[in-house]
Amino acid sequence: MRLKVKFLKWFAGVPVAMLNLKTAQRLGIHSRDRISIRTLGKNPKELSTVVGLVEGIVGKNQIALSSEVRSLMDLRRGQFVEVSLARAPKSLEYIKAKLDGKRLTQQELDTILKDLVSNSLSEAEVALFVSAMYKQGMNFKEIIALIKSMLHSGEKLNLRNKVIVDKHCVGGVAGNRTTPIVVSICASAGLVMPKNSSRAITSAAGTADVVEVLANVEFTKAQLEKLVRKVGACLVWEGPIGIVPADSKIIRIERVLGIDPKSQLLASIMSKKLAVGSNYILIDIPYGRGAKIERKNEALSLKREFEKLARYFKVRIKVVLTDGSQPIGNGVGPVLEMMDVLSVLDPSKKGPKDLEEKALFLAGEILEMAGKAKKGKGKELARDLLSSGKAFKKFKQIIEAQGGKIKRLAPAKFHTRILSKKKGEITHIDNRKINFLARIVGCPLDKDAGLFIHHHVGEKVEKGEPLLTFYAQTPSRLKEVMKFYKKQKPILIQKAKRN
Amino acid sequence: MRLKVKFLKWFAGVPVAMLNLKTAQRLGIHSRDRISIRTLGKNPKELSTVVGLVEGIVGKNQIALSSEVRSLMDLRRGQFVEVSLARAPKSLEYIKAKLDGKRLTQQELDTILKDLVSNSLSEAEVALFVSAMYKQGMNFKEIIALIKSMLHSGEKLNLRNKVIVDKHCVGGVAGNRTTPIVVSICASAGLVMPKNSSRAITSAAGTADVVEVLANVEFTKAQLEKLVRKVGACLVWEGPIGIVPADSKIIRIERVLGIDPKSQLLASIMSKKLAVGSNYILIDIPYGRGAKIERKNEALSLKREFEKLARYFKVRIKVVLTDGSQPIGNGVGPVLEMMDVLSVLDPSKKGPKDLEEKALFLAGEILEMAGKAKKGKGKELARDLLSSGKAFKKFKQIIEAQGGKIKRLAPAKFHTRILSKKKGEITHIDNRKINFLARIVGCPLDKDAGLFIHHHVGEKVEKGEPLLTFYAQTPSRLKEVMKFYKKQKPILIQKAKRN
Repeated sequence: MRLKVKFLKWFAGVPVAMLNLKTAQRLGIHSRDRISIRTLGKNPKELSTVVGLVEGIVGKNQIALSSEVRSLMDLRRGQFVEVSLARAPKSLEYIKAKLDGKRLTQQELDTILKDLVSNSLSEAEVALFVSAMYKQGMNFKEIIALIKSMLHSGEKLNLRNKVIVDKHCVGGVAGNRTTPIVVSICASAGLVMPKNSSRAITSAAGTADVVEVLANVEFTKAQLEKLVRKVGACLVWEGPIGIVPADSKIIRIERVLGIDPKSQLLASIMSKKLAVGSNYILIDIPYGRGAKIERKNEALSLKREFEKLARYFKVRIKVVLTDGSQPIGNGVGPVLEMMDVLSVLDPSKKGPKDLEEKALFLAGEILEMAGKAKKGKGKELARDLLSSGKAFKKFKQIIEAQGGKIKRLAPAKFHTRILSKKKGEITHIDNRKINFLARIVGCPLDKDAGLFIHHHVGEKVEKGEPLLTFYAQTPSRLKEVMKFYKKQKPILIQKAKRN
Repeated sequence: MRLKVKFLKWFAGVPVAMLNLKTAQRLGIHSRDRISIRTLGKNPKELSTVVGLVEGIVGKNQIALSSEVRSLMDLRRGQFVEVSLARAPKSLEYIKAKLDGKRLTQQELDTILKDLVSNSLSEAEVALFVSAMYKQGMNFKEIIALIKSMLHSGEKLNLRNKVIVDKHCVGGVAGNRTTPIVVSICASAGLVMPKNSSRAITSAAGTADVVEVLANVEFTKAQLEKLVRKVGACLVWEGPIGIVPADSKIIRIERVLGIDPKSQLLASIMSKKLAVGSNYILIDIPYGRGAKIERKNEALSLKREFEKLARYFKVRIKVVLTDGSQPIGNGVGPVLEMMDVLSVLDPSKKGPKDLEEKALFLAGEILEMAGKAKKGKGKELARDLLSSGKAFKKFKQIIEAQGGKIKRLAPAKFHTRILSKKKGEITHIDNRKINFLARIVGCPLDKDAGLFIHHHVGEKVEKGEPLLTFYAQTPSRLKEVMKFYKKQKPILIQKAKRN
């Protein structure tokens, strides 16, 4: 049936459609059914999506589409599309076979990822795929195939440089914003580093959210290539470039489920690095209590898998295991983290030592790997580039190339301090809980919301000394976060022994 | 944050909400996040739901809710509710533990089902639960616990009769509408039979859709009890009664995934029978090519499980294995199936023999089990009740008690006949494909749409003889079904040998 496209300025987060109740009845469509939408003309675009039914808002011969459908299909208001009931996609069979223990072939994975990208799989079906990967695991051959499928599903950057460096952190550590510093140091040494980052979904901020405090982070593939050719590096959001679109869909469901199959984690990271053409890659795996990866064994096994994949895809990989048992830096939240980053980069300022040391260590490893420093001399070179202001200059260039500029930053105007109730030593600061509290005060959307960590693990505090300061745009947010703070107890203090 | 409730006459199929983009930003809520909605006052009702963001339609201090939320929370337009970001429910942990092979306890299953009913679990999370049950299976103790949890999740019928009979068909056979006939026969023998049925989700029609052709099928628990006390039986839709609401949510996702874990199938059927107080239960398991259960072994193992559960719950169960390799009766679709049913029930008419014989067999088994007939004499009694018109009289009483009346029925006005292209013998009619084609012509929403099967397996046809007739409300539906018919080939004919 031909229906007229209507837009509702509707951000459903996923491509969804709404039909008038009467129209749906004529089409035999129930709410939550999946429909197929096809453009008319010679080279029709097709997309499957879940439908809701409505009385009123949408006319009888209309279909209302969420902004996601609009941009995926490149539609204009008033345009006609062909709408029909969609059938269960072929890939659902493959997913069920995987759940039953079958190994998936390249062709089967290609089909699954194609259906994922065209939205032919529902959330429940993607959840089944995640569950099958988690439950059955994937062997090396399947992981290779999954990486190739992911690469097929999206765009590739075309940079033509012989050496392209990259870094990736497996994540989970609050405030751990080393990326802008590492990229600035490496690029100031002449290395090409086209860094694509994610936005936060469950954490307080992703690198893209933090950089957005100062500059634009959304670029097309062509703009990005121009950017990197000009200043040697970038700090952008991976979303709009269209590299590995299948991955972001899988990750969304993984986050809902709180499940992160190792095969998918490996494929996700590797495919994104390969899509931008990186051939010298540093992987940071923080591990410890409260981190995404808690046990060292697990971190080591992941390290070995990365190394195996690197050999297969003929790229150099260095995997470092770091301390992920507490937050790094003082600020948590986009503005607060950028303030930390700027104070480390600017030689005239004093930034958080732990953040600076970690960034220097990571940059040093990359400089050595890519041949800019001799073995054991990378960190020294990194420190020179930082303290001389060269890295800061490069950072400014990147920010300006991305349409921004360095400016004075301040956190949100309402704040509450948490004071220590006893004298003692801090024994634990829980990353998961800190991230959660930062979201309650408004992160990542309220860029200047967040929290400031006054002390780290191992430090002694007096009774009444500040532990945390929360920043929010409204007093009600602060009231809300205090309720959760009391339940969560993110900071553990061991009482000083009397003597 | 307090928001004003707005209704959109919006039938999303699941409880969902929409917030203004600005309001969502203030609350730190992204699209597809889960929010908690709480009514104000002394005994607040709470519900979790997924949210979409919109510009325009919903005002800054408003929340738009789908009709499902409205009825679940019993809300009035303009009422204020407290809205906040919801956290991942505790039950998600249990589901993941199950996926890892843990056995679930009664308390854990109770929590999962409670979260399911209050909509605190997203579709992806329910999919994970289904996948965990499928992948890990459930032992007898877990199935017992699941049944008890399902019973706790809903209402129970209070009938006080000593003997309450029931029947259930595992399903998958097109046109197999024995229930109205069996219920009428048994009730005309004086048995109490409070039959609750489902509506179709993937098939052409459920018993509730078929009965709705003549009468109302939506009743509250209290209305239902009154109904059964009056006429001894009913033929209603299980939905509005509120027995085992968790089950329908799980089934919805199972159908999307095309996965039906045995444990869930057993728990679903048993809990519904126990919730209405049935203690003499007949289970019909059709098996064969194209049926839901294809292999006899599988049917036998299911039979044994039912018998074990019946012993535990101290009810009598008889499980019969029947032929599920082809459709039963001639009509497929609500009106066409009711026409078959009426022609079997009305002694002055000649109905499809296969449907009549199967209904008599099933009714006979129930009559024997409940002591109305001696062993081996049940079918005979059933035939008497049918041919004497007593069953038809009882059916009329039930239909009238449900606010309906017997009337002349006719299928939809547009039709197309499929003629045999060769002379030969019909060797297979595929239930799955027949159900699918019936949906294409408009079933189950277009009640008079459907198809008529002219011949069954084993019958000989001449070239040019009709095999099927499709009925639809519009010619475009018929055009559509012909495309699929050619691809599906639901009827196989073996060419007659030349002699």
